[in-house]
Amino acid sequence: MQTELSQTLGIEHAVFGFTPFPAVAAAISRAGGFGVLGAVRYTAPDELKRDLDWIEAHVGGRPYGVDVVMPAKKVEGVTEADVEAMIPEGHRQFVRDTLARHGVPELAQDEASGWRITGWMEQVARSQLDVAFDYPIRLLANALGSPPADVVARAHDRDVLVAALAGSARHAEKHRDAGIDVVVAQGYEAGGHTGEIASMVLTPEAVDAVAPLPVLAAGGIGSGQQVAAALALGAQGVWLGSLWLTTTEADLGSPALTRKLLAAGSGDTVRSRALTGKPARQLRTEWTDAWDDPAGPGALPMPLQGLLVAEAVSRIQKYEIDPLLGTPVGQIVGRMNSERSVQAVFDDLTRGFEEAVDRVNRVAGRSGPS
Amino acid sequence: MQTELSQTLGIEHAVFGFTPFPAVAAAISRAGGFGVLGAVRYTAPDELKRDLDWIEAHVGGRPYGVDVVMPAKKVEGVTEADVEAMIPEGHRQFVRDTLARHGVPELAQDEASGWRITGWMEQVARSQLDVAFDYPIRLLANALGSPPADVVARAHDRDVLVAALAGSARHAEKHRDAGIDVVVAQGYEAGGHTGEIASMVLTPEAVDAVAPLPVLAAGGIGSGQQVAAALALGAQGVWLGSLWLTTTEADLGSPALTRKLLAAGSGDTVRSRALTGKPARQLRTEWTDAWDDPAGPGALPMPLQGLLVAEAVSRIQKYEIDPLLGTPVGQIVGRMNSERSVQAVFDDLTRGFEEAVDRVNRVAGRSGPS
Repeated sequence: MQTELSQTLGIEHAVFGFTPFPAVAAAISRAGGFGVLGAVRYTAPDELKRDLDWIEAHVGGRPYGVDVVMPAKKVEGVTEADVEAMIPEGHRQFVRDTLARHGVPELAQDEASGWRITGWMEQVARSQLDVAFDYPIRLLANALGSPPADVVARAHDRDVLVAALAGSARHAEKHRDAGIDVVVAQGYEAGGHTGEIASMVLTPEAVDAVAPLPVLAAGGIGSGQQVAAALALGAQGVWLGSLWLTTTEADLGSPALTRKLLAAGSGDTVRSRALTGKPARQLRTEWTDAWDDPAGPGALPMPLQGLLVAEAVSRIQKYEIDPLLGTPVGQIVGRMNSERSVQAVFDDLTRGFEEAVDRVNRVAGRSGPS
Repeated sequence: MQTELSQTLGIEHAVFGFTPFPAVAAAISRAGGFGVLGAVRYTAPDELKRDLDWIEAHVGGRPYGVDVVMPAKKVEGVTEADVEAMIPEGHRQFVRDTLARHGVPELAQDEASGWRITGWMEQVARSQLDVAFDYPIRLLANALGSPPADVVARAHDRDVLVAALAGSARHAEKHRDAGIDVVVAQGYEAGGHTGEIASMVLTPEAVDAVAPLPVLAAGGIGSGQQVAAALALGAQGVWLGSLWLTTTEADLGSPALTRKLLAAGSGDTVRSRALTGKPARQLRTEWTDAWDDPAGPGALPMPLQGLLVAEAVSRIQKYEIDPLLGTPVGQIVGRMNSERSVQAVFDDLTRGFEEAVDRVNRVAGRSGPS
């Protein structure tokens, strides 16, 4: 699967894999794709450095990238404590009540919350960038909005491509105007933050809006036939996140969560504000139901909601409280039915892609070399 | 675009077009596709007969079909008056208030409501079938649920294929078990009644669920590249409805509505219960907002909501009350930006399809005959 973008980056397959796990990122690049390490969970620069060192040692010289969450809008001098103070007591009580109803134990005193909102704040994202730019990354992705101009310039100085996620053609145009190099068009069916427009409609709209800038299709892609569909829609490659969560290299840290992912159908996700305050697709659980219930207090806006629920989410995950246990994941979860290695997933993608190309050629009445 | 199903039906392109307009249905079949006339709006058998006569005279001997709405679950002996009596007065008042707020005039005393709920009731659907089976239709589609067993048998006796719309793999399996011949997998992005699963995910799930039964992909398809994507996903053809609404052969009866469709973007639709009581994608208007507003009474279940709003919808359409004026349509409305003939739409679809096949072959490194 070769496109202009895959050739620019020197990769074999135009398959970009977003993952929070260094072992998955390295395996994706080794398999001929392009691994992108999500940095949002790193609060300490040393931890990111340690994991990028690991990737460098295991990526076999193949190119890879890093994904940060950096809002273009600055909020000067706001600390985590300032944000904490904005959370209404009623919402805190709702969290305590919901956890108590399910008997969720407290964390021990020396255990930190695993998921911190601070990764979403600009100063943290900038310290992540300082670390990442010390490594030979080839792509920097920004998960929410356009990155600030100085960050784009800094990336371009180092010959690093800049990508940004878009949920509409208008978002894509804003990113282009901000000087980025690659648009990731994230459809409704995708895991994590998504808009309302499904990939079938969004991908060609984004392609037309920003051409000749390359667009990667994200959302609903977990098989080779879906890769072929995305490329037919004009994408220069695909951006996959969910599919890697059940690979053997992934380290979800919760066998119960892995079991839930393997068992879930495509109808078992929901686009909910429960996790961050912005609509993000995730497994539907009693936790998302509680936040989406009109009778409840409802989710707070970003970044308050993420800060409010960070500790609760850590406790739910640590103690594997099944009815509440979830994770961001797309509708493609319905096809994630066995634990496989990243290489096995790639073999499946490339085989399925070739079969889909055969099928389309047959429909078109072309007797190609297949 | 040739598939096993298109060959069975003797059509040139595996493009199925659903439309309430006889002129559009005939033009689709003449252009090499397969026109399907939606019968739900016909309450008098004579009117359906008149329009099928017209199609017979104008379809040039090409095959075509009919679409009815026939629930498999029977409600014996329930009349429209019985259903009327179930509607709460508060909901009637909400309709009156909303119309009054926008100054919507009353219909004249001799004007019937154009859109009648009766088309959704089994006795009406059966009288439509009695008419339709007198014509050489090749396909009978059921828009909501599996058709009753006797209807399937009656169709098969006449060598008529039976199709049914599905929003999930489970729906598709139920249809297969009911003996139908073709599954129309209707994705989240489609106009009209839809589920939550987007076409990119739903199409291959439905294909795998009912193979070797053919699946048509519906939802998000309005260009040749989207046709190619659907075929890459394993569909044996595409089922398009929205795209024809702005063709020159369509008779929407409201220039203002046509203007709204031409101007709308892909983000200007909403999946709302406002029209029928079940979630159906349509243009977002102040009318859908009123029904979706948590502060309002909310939509009633099907069939009550359709009966409740039938006259109101007729008045809004007749007097072209712009802020309230809408229609079922999919996210593809963002690409319906000019009035074109059905033939011009077909030319565009086939050209775009060939270009998409070229693109996918290039990505696959195949030097086909293109």
